[in-house]
Amino acid sequence: MALNQSLRPGLIQLRVLDLDETLKFYKDILGMDEVCRTSDGRVCLKTYDEFDHHSVTLRLADEAGLDYVAFKVASNETLQEMVKATEQFGYTVTEVPADSDQPGYGKRYRFKICTGHTFELYSEVALAEKTPGTINPDIWNEPPRGMGVIRLDHFLLYGPNIEEAERYCTEVMHMYVPELCNKPDGKRMATWITGSNKPHDLAFVEYDKPGKIHHVGFLLQDWNHVGQVADLIAINRLKKDIGPTRHAITRGQTIYFWEPSGNRIEVYAGGYTAYPDNPQRVWDVDHLGRGLFYYEGEIIPSFLEIVT
Amino acid sequence: MALNQSLRPGLIQLRVLDLDETLKFYKDILGMDEVCRTSDGRVCLKTYDEFDHHSVTLRLADEAGLDYVAFKVASNETLQEMVKATEQFGYTVTEVPADSDQPGYGKRYRFKICTGHTFELYSEVALAEKTPGTINPDIWNEPPRGMGVIRLDHFLLYGPNIEEAERYCTEVMHMYVPELCNKPDGKRMATWITGSNKPHDLAFVEYDKPGKIHHVGFLLQDWNHVGQVADLIAINRLKKDIGPTRHAITRGQTIYFWEPSGNRIEVYAGGYTAYPDNPQRVWDVDHLGRGLFYYEGEIIPSFLEIVT
Amino acid sequence: MALNQSLRPGLIQLRVLDLDETLKFYKDILGMDEVCRTSDGRVCLKTYDEFDHHSVTLRLADEAGLDYVAFKVASNETLQEMVKATEQFGYTVTEVPADSDQPGYGKRYRFKICTGHTFELYSEVALAEKTPGTINPDIWNEPPRGMGVIRLDHFLLYGPNIEEAERYCTEVMHMYVPELCNKPDGKRMATWITGSNKPHDLAFVEYDKPGKIHHVGFLLQDWNHVGQVADLIAINRLKKDIGPTRHAITRGQTIYFWEPSGNRIEVYAGGYTAYPDNPQRVWDVDHLGRGLFYYEGEIIPSFLEIVT
Amino acid sequence: MALNQSLRPGLIQLRVLDLDETLKFYKDILGMDEVCRTSDGRVCLKTYDEFDHHSVTLRLADEAGLDYVAFKVASNETLQEMVKATEQFGYTVTEVPADSDQPGYGKRYRFKICTGHTFELYSEVALAEKTPGTINPDIWNEPPRGMGVIRLDHFLLYGPNIEEAERYCTEVMHMYVPELCNKPDGKRMATWITGSNKPHDLAFVEYDKPGKIHHVGFLLQDWNHVGQVADLIAINRLKKDIGPTRHAITRGQTIYFWEPSGNRIEVYAGGYTAYPDNPQRVWDVDHLGRGLFYYEGEIIPSFLEIVT
Repeated sequence: MALNQSLRPGLIQLRVLDLDETLKFYKDILGMDEVCRTSDGRVCLKTYDEFDHHSVTLRLADEAGLDYVAFKVASNETLQEMVKATEQFGYTVTEVPADSDQPGYGKRYRFKICTGHTFELYSEVALAEKTPGTINPDIWNEPPRGMGVIRLDHFLLYGPNIEEAERYCTEVMHMYVPELCNKPDGKRMATWITGSNKPHDLAFVEYDKPGKIHHVGFLLQDWNHVGQVADLIAINRLKKDIGPTRHAITRGQTIYFWEPSGNRIEVYAGGYTAYPDNPQRVWDVDHLGRGLFYYEGEIIPSFLEIVT
Repeated sequence: MALNQSLRPGLIQLRVLDLDETLKFYKDILGMDEVCRTSDGRVCLKTYDEFDHHSVTLRLADEAGLDYVAFKVASNETLQEMVKATEQFGYTVTEVPADSDQPGYGKRYRFKICTGHTFELYSEVALAEKTPGTINPDIWNEPPRGMGVIRLDHFLLYGPNIEEAERYCTEVMHMYVPELCNKPDGKRMATWITGSNKPHDLAFVEYDKPGKIHHVGFLLQDWNHVGQVADLIAINRLKKDIGPTRHAITRGQTIYFWEPSGNRIEVYAGGYTAYPDNPQRVWDVDHLGRGLFYYEGEIIPSFLEIVT
Repeated sequence: MALNQSLRPGLIQLRVLDLDETLKFYKDILGMDEVCRTSDGRVCLKTYDEFDHHSVTLRLADEAGLDYVAFKVASNETLQEMVKATEQFGYTVTEVPADSDQPGYGKRYRFKICTGHTFELYSEVALAEKTPGTINPDIWNEPPRGMGVIRLDHFLLYGPNIEEAERYCTEVMHMYVPELCNKPDGKRMATWITGSNKPHDLAFVEYDKPGKIHHVGFLLQDWNHVGQVADLIAINRLKKDIGPTRHAITRGQTIYFWEPSGNRIEVYAGGYTAYPDNPQRVWDVDHLGRGLFYYEGEIIPSFLEIVT
Repeated sequence: MALNQSLRPGLIQLRVLDLDETLKFYKDILGMDEVCRTSDGRVCLKTYDEFDHHSVTLRLADEAGLDYVAFKVASNETLQEMVKATEQFGYTVTEVPADSDQPGYGKRYRFKICTGHTFELYSEVALAEKTPGTINPDIWNEPPRGMGVIRLDHFLLYGPNIEEAERYCTEVMHMYVPELCNKPDGKRMATWITGSNKPHDLAFVEYDKPGKIHHVGFLLQDWNHVGQVADLIAINRLKKDIGPTRHAITRGQTIYFWEPSGNRIEVYAGGYTAYPDNPQRVWDVDHLGRGLFYYEGEIIPSFLEIVT
């Protein structure tokens, strides 16, 4: 299959501080559907346009942030090869049995990478009960609510040693790096990584504290929907970080804001069509401000300092 | 590499009836750049956002239509495997030497498929002189002209025996079929085929005459640009077929019109993010009108009858 | 006051064939709010962004169509002057007492014009209970539903002797004619008339049958909302007439479709900023197709033939 | 005429520091056309969609800022009445003869208002040589360049005693005030004033220094063009103040930036349809941040401090 190996980030488990208020945001404002709750009180959600069982799990905790991200790979065969390669890369892998803590999911393999983030790989997940139509389908079955995000798109992780993390993603997960930013000493400051035509499935920024998440990105259709989201952020008095603006990096049109528990959310549209044979885009750190915030031309402090 | 095998349709050679007038369209209205001319008078063009040497070659002829389409594959190794598999599939392959009739292109392998269309495969092509920026790049280097199409996106071919053609694309080129339409007898009426996240790299409609092309599709950023293209079609008195409208199939937002030589052009934005593990969308032929033209709910005769 | 005399068409009473189904359309799809019902079973509606008591009244009848349109004028003084001038123009005026058949409305003056349409003039109407905010207001108080039309914008009337109707609107109502279309014999084929910066508050097309309405136009924010309305028309299987397209006349971006009772609705965005001192735009009837449907370049038969 | 008295701000004369560089901005980036130069070296410009001779005059000077703004009124009769009323209001009026310092303009009447700004009134101006089409017209004659601004829309003036200025505009020019902001002591902090359906033709902010201009606003079609302008600001390395964002006040979608001489420019789309009979929107100064910058929820210092 032309599109294979690591297909996409398919699941993310986030820690939230107030399940009711935060859930209200994810459902009524972001527009996700609640799929189910686990016996230990976590809530599983999906967007209206995703086929898989769920893509976001919220867990009540004392501190916001990321429990783990899980990548869907093309087949069980690929999964077994990647697990083996992950162990050879030096990470300790544990198996999470099918249908244990994530309803609908087949077995997952879990390991911590050098940046302090927990990754998982899996190849099987049940279809959701409510998927997009497949027989003479309409473009949606029920009107999208609120921001109407289309799908979980990508995330940005902050942690140490991102060069190794990038190497893991390319060597073991067979992803590629359409765009990167180097420090004056030639070391990686930031890296954008994808396994497909999307300009990034995930990204890393070098950071001294391990295991931090900067934002979870959800897909919107276009710039106009970015504007409509900005209206909703204002009307709902959500705390905005930056935007509507555009990245020169990825070219995405975007807004960043915080959900009620303090996890940063990005809604994102546009972006170029990435191909592994196209030249890599390279940024110097002194141009990174313009790269990140094309309309502002500089980094805003909150963007570098606030992570969960 | 996660995105590999058949990367994309990278080159299309079209026959045109009047080089000057048609070229004026491709350059000033569609917004492509002339890259070079061949010794036999053909003109090579690319969009502002493509990296490869050129993507469209125009050849003066007595009849409009398609000479061939060429697909870029991930590596020479993949190329050799696919050539072998193509021969095993039963098609006769001939080699077109590097830098012969298409400037900048490495060796290509050419063969005719069952539908009467000539396909080519290649793995090497020079970068264009004027590519998108790669060092601290802006979103473009020069303002896009006219319709400002972003890239060659896909094409739709009309010919007999599309089930075999679909089988060729999936078995040999390792593409997949996100969406298809069957006749009441269960035979394929139409098929949409991709090797990536794009909902289609190419499509076929079953047709009694071989080797016909229905349209070449170019990418636009979003619905607003579809509207701006509609303005340009009107102002330039181009002959429109249909649109602005939306496909339910692929979900693309679109307009179809004819360039001065009579080849149908589609400009296209939106469309879902395709994945090979998502369920296939299936259409019955009596819903195909709504599938093709979601806003009209029915097929217009010209769309089925006029091909080049 | 700089903007005075005839302020706007503020009220329209339409005949519908099935109150439940049609009302469901006006509320859930078009996005209007039901304000009240009259003792004789008529339903009064307004958009989310209108201040006045209501703008559309639906009356159950055997035949769809228009009962009357009512214009808000700047003051009671203006009203009395216009009534007098209307009588001098030759129309018979009757008074409809305040708060009689239209809740919230002050006294209205009713008369039939040469085209067979019933016009009304009024200067007083109560504010709606739910208006847009006025103290530190948000852009809306509740999320607009469905198509989320912003306000009643204009209407197009078909009937005989539109030159006299145009003369009435300019001489008595003090409106002006930014755009018109003449037949080869120099007689008026169509006329667009406004009292403000909107390119039209109403329009007439010469037609042999009196008292017909072609469409009621509602305002949308922009082209993107035109696209979203097109999605809703398709998903709700409404019968579309034409669009998304653009008028060269007025420059509006538009879709026409029928509500369940068969009255044609236009949703409309854009359009130039009209001024009475700008030159008049003049169309020959053989260019009218392009003037009406800039993207199609020709009139579609249904647009000329179907009225209610 | 329903739309009369003060029609619109039709002309603005700005001081610029470097005629060549600044003119390049107004022509190539903002998209205006140079109409003519005066014998004393000033440059007259108009947008592609304006009918009048020119709307912006640039004068080389040591300090950026505003020389004067001129309002077109409906007729010479209105003009004479307004001049008389202006004198009765207490301002000293001088006549600027026809075709003297502003080519194409009839006689203008000039006076200084309490805020230190010079206003002019006129009723006659020649049509431009290149106007929008009026006989079976296309939506434009030549493709708009750069930002492609549609027309001079409004301006914001900073100066003392804006309550008197507001009173002048309403009592003498017959404009109205759709929206205002009061300080805790009940005094006017800011006022938005219009003579038409536009939410503002001009605005004032109370300020201790007289005669300052905050920005000149040009009209764009919609939010998408706001995004395209943001791209152009970034690519051309113009200095942006704020945006893309939205005002709650007027509801306009907007960006502010500085032209090369340091005059602030706004490009603006959307905004509600204003009517003099609709309730006035009133803001408290502690909500003004959200009113001005709906997406940011607060005023940025540069917006209050930098004027020319």
